[in-house]
Amino acid sequence: MDLHSAQDILDRCAGQITAEIEQGLGKNYKEVLNASSADFHRMGLKPITFFRQVLATCFYPSLLTDESLPLDARERAQRILAECEGGSIGSYTAARGIKKILDSICKFITKRDGVIPDPDKIYITNGSQMSLIMVMKLLVQSEGSLKTGVLTPVPSHPTFNMAVAAQGGVVVPYYLCEEQGWAIQIEELQRAVHMARGQCNPTVLYLINPGSPTGHVQSKDSIAEVIRFSAKEKLFLMVDEVHQDIVYGKGIEFYSYRRVLSEMGLPYSSSVELASFNSISKSVMGECGLRGGYMELVNLDPLVIPYIHKFFNTFTCGTLNGQIAVDVMAEPPQPTQPSYELYTQEVQLIRSTISNNAQKTLEVLSGLPGISCQPVNGGIFAFPRLHLSQSAIKHAKEKQLELDLLYCLSLLEDEGLCVGAGCVHGQKEGTYHIRICLAISEEIMKDVLQRLKSFHLRFIKEFP
Amino acid sequence: MDLHSAQDILDRCAGQITAEIEQGLGKNYKEVLNASSADFHRMGLKPITFFRQVLATCFYPSLLTDESLPLDARERAQRILAECEGGSIGSYTAARGIKKILDSICKFITKRDGVIPDPDKIYITNGSQMSLIMVMKLLVQSEGSLKTGVLTPVPSHPTFNMAVAAQGGVVVPYYLCEEQGWAIQIEELQRAVHMARGQCNPTVLYLINPGSPTGHVQSKDSIAEVIRFSAKEKLFLMVDEVHQDIVYGKGIEFYSYRRVLSEMGLPYSSSVELASFNSISKSVMGECGLRGGYMELVNLDPLVIPYIHKFFNTFTCGTLNGQIAVDVMAEPPQPTQPSYELYTQEVQLIRSTISNNAQKTLEVLSGLPGISCQPVNGGIFAFPRLHLSQSAIKHAKEKQLELDLLYCLSLLEDEGLCVGAGCVHGQKEGTYHIRICLAISEEIMKDVLQRLKSFHLRFIKEFP
Repeated sequence: MDLHSAQDILDRCAGQITAEIEQGLGKNYKEVLNASSADFHRMGLKPITFFRQVLATCFYPSLLTDESLPLDARERAQRILAECEGGSIGSYTAARGIKKILDSICKFITKRDGVIPDPDKIYITNGSQMSLIMVMKLLVQSEGSLKTGVLTPVPSHPTFNMAVAAQGGVVVPYYLCEEQGWAIQIEELQRAVHMARGQCNPTVLYLINPGSPTGHVQSKDSIAEVIRFSAKEKLFLMVDEVHQDIVYGKGIEFYSYRRVLSEMGLPYSSSVELASFNSISKSVMGECGLRGGYMELVNLDPLVIPYIHKFFNTFTCGTLNGQIAVDVMAEPPQPTQPSYELYTQEVQLIRSTISNNAQKTLEVLSGLPGISCQPVNGGIFAFPRLHLSQSAIKHAKEKQLELDLLYCLSLLEDEGLCVGAGCVHGQKEGTYHIRICLAISEEIMKDVLQRLKSFHLRFIKEFP
Repeated sequence: MDLHSAQDILDRCAGQITAEIEQGLGKNYKEVLNASSADFHRMGLKPITFFRQVLATCFYPSLLTDESLPLDARERAQRILAECEGGSIGSYTAARGIKKILDSICKFITKRDGVIPDPDKIYITNGSQMSLIMVMKLLVQSEGSLKTGVLTPVPSHPTFNMAVAAQGGVVVPYYLCEEQGWAIQIEELQRAVHMARGQCNPTVLYLINPGSPTGHVQSKDSIAEVIRFSAKEKLFLMVDEVHQDIVYGKGIEFYSYRRVLSEMGLPYSSSVELASFNSISKSVMGECGLRGGYMELVNLDPLVIPYIHKFFNTFTCGTLNGQIAVDVMAEPPQPTQPSYELYTQEVQLIRSTISNNAQKTLEVLSGLPGISCQPVNGGIFAFPRLHLSQSAIKHAKEKQLELDLLYCLSLLEDEGLCVGAGCVHGQKEGTYHIRICLAISEEIMKDVLQRLKSFHLRFIKEFP
């Protein structure tokens, strides 16, 4: 079976059930809940007011004099409009984005990492999916004797693997260690590199930190280890850090690869090549529909940079609302400004909601037989493991479905709850998982966990 | 010389001169005017108020009760928000776009063409560049004995040719007939197909109507001829119709390929495969920074459709503001609604500005020696031909530059006016052109033509 299509099957099935409910066909539930993908506002989280006020004013500058909007939102809009050609966000910008917004990103990185980045190595894009595809295009060698190998975590995102393949690269899987909370192990990276050599030319290492869908957050030491390993094996680091502002595990802190690399000093800090990705859709902002993000390139061969610029210039600029969202993400309201309090409250609410959801999910799961979950310290997913009986495995085989997909389809049909199937994200042979999104309002999350619990207990009973 | 880089050279040079002016270095002009690319708001045209009001309200729904905004703009926003998951445009939509907006596009096509399209064959994207790349990915066969040939007009856009090459296809140029106002000639298409056979497998015919950068608008008869030719040669028609609402030549009307195809009846109407593209950045709306457009597929093999849907589903949806802009483009305010008058005035002003600019450009050029221009009946560019002396040609050869690039660089340096070089767009060997954008406020256009005239007369004198 084409594993990507497992997600399609679930999506189609969810759509069909929704249509049946609309047609008045009786179900045990009033509506389908989608806890499968991350879509903040769909699942009851609220947009951040300041950002929306800035954006509305940029689109309709008559609002610049509307005193019902806070002054700092209007001033921010005015500052952005002053950077747009003709004072309109309907104009094209430079391909990499508005210069002042690139500068804001630099300040944001400096504050986070204590380094001063080069604004010329920052690229604003229509979301991190687009950035990843672009970097992949630059790195992957699809012709010649050996194709480029891209070390990719398992579990991960199917879209990333598809992007590697689409550019003519080879996915080289490395397994995260579930027993250690989905940590990265250097021995496993080493095994993957050794296995790959001869089959392809492994030159890229893709990492997701905070982990998705795992919820693991890498320690500073672990990052340093990975950097040393990459230096030794001459790997280009592609680091998806889109959940960096959603870290909530007790005593856990987010360290960027950028920061650890610079703190390690020479020779690493000047030699290990790194691309780091950030996005507005997966930050607390949760603006999935708006498409915006940026990437920073570090230590790239200066001879390569003109090619990258040229390559970027063949695309039109990232959408303006994405650029504006990146600006607000990089430079939120400050304590002296009128929007500070509301902004801080809204951000805190989203963070605490996700953190509480993680906590409650772990509590509920720990009380259930046949399912276990590693600690979730950051990000917006839990990826619990199903420990199901031989009779369940046999049943799935008869149905010619992956066991976790069968589980998800039954859950969807019986309880109207859609969660992701582990087979979509990759997992060790013979293990089965589900992916639950945590970026959901607490009220809906209660319903999600209730439905999951009811179904799981019935399923366990049906296949003892 | 890499011809695409001619544009880069011009852009870099314009940037450098602007920086020099900012540093206080004296020039004969106060600022660089960019009449090279189409960027409506940058060049003094104004955004359309209704669209911006709808968008601002969608972003910041508190405005739904703001009575300083017209009721129909708020109602439109409310209708769109009702279609968004969680009532927020920060949620993902279906990959092809919001269902109700697809329905609006269908109504728009029905009104334009008198046919009832299938909403399932319409795809909203981040602008037509993205749609073209997607269709290309589906059509182009890059492996196997013969690559896919894509018949492409000369002149055209360099980005299209790059997209064909990037997907592994082969650009098969066909020349538009300048002497006949840049019309398409069937004999020339036939010549191109014959030449290509054996070298590649020509299966796609790309057309731009209204023409860009030519300003030619195809007649109904010409379109019917192209359709018959495509049927005979089994070509897939890819038609860029992004300037369809900017047609101003006396007695000239826009006919969509969709309409002519359906009016031709069987067997054509049910067999010739067609993809038609439309965009918000190149319509009167001129919202370049927002990225939005749609394409309609007609007569595609039903067996292919599931693959196309699947392919689309691997991308996230088009940006929401682009979708909203498409909705307004497809369904503008109606005569009974409060925004109708202002909307109509604004649209008329943009159309008449572009039309007047075309007229004035032709007038000015007709009074100059050494330059000629075909009628411009639609679209936003004029593409006049330079008839320069042997001494000018010799001078360019000495400088190792294409003659039109040399002309553009001198114009930029001497008068601070940036226009496009013909070599970027393609032209018959030994002919030279410049591209002038017409989507510019009349005031700025006056300045553009004055600078062009002064320079041209000096250049002619310098190289007699």
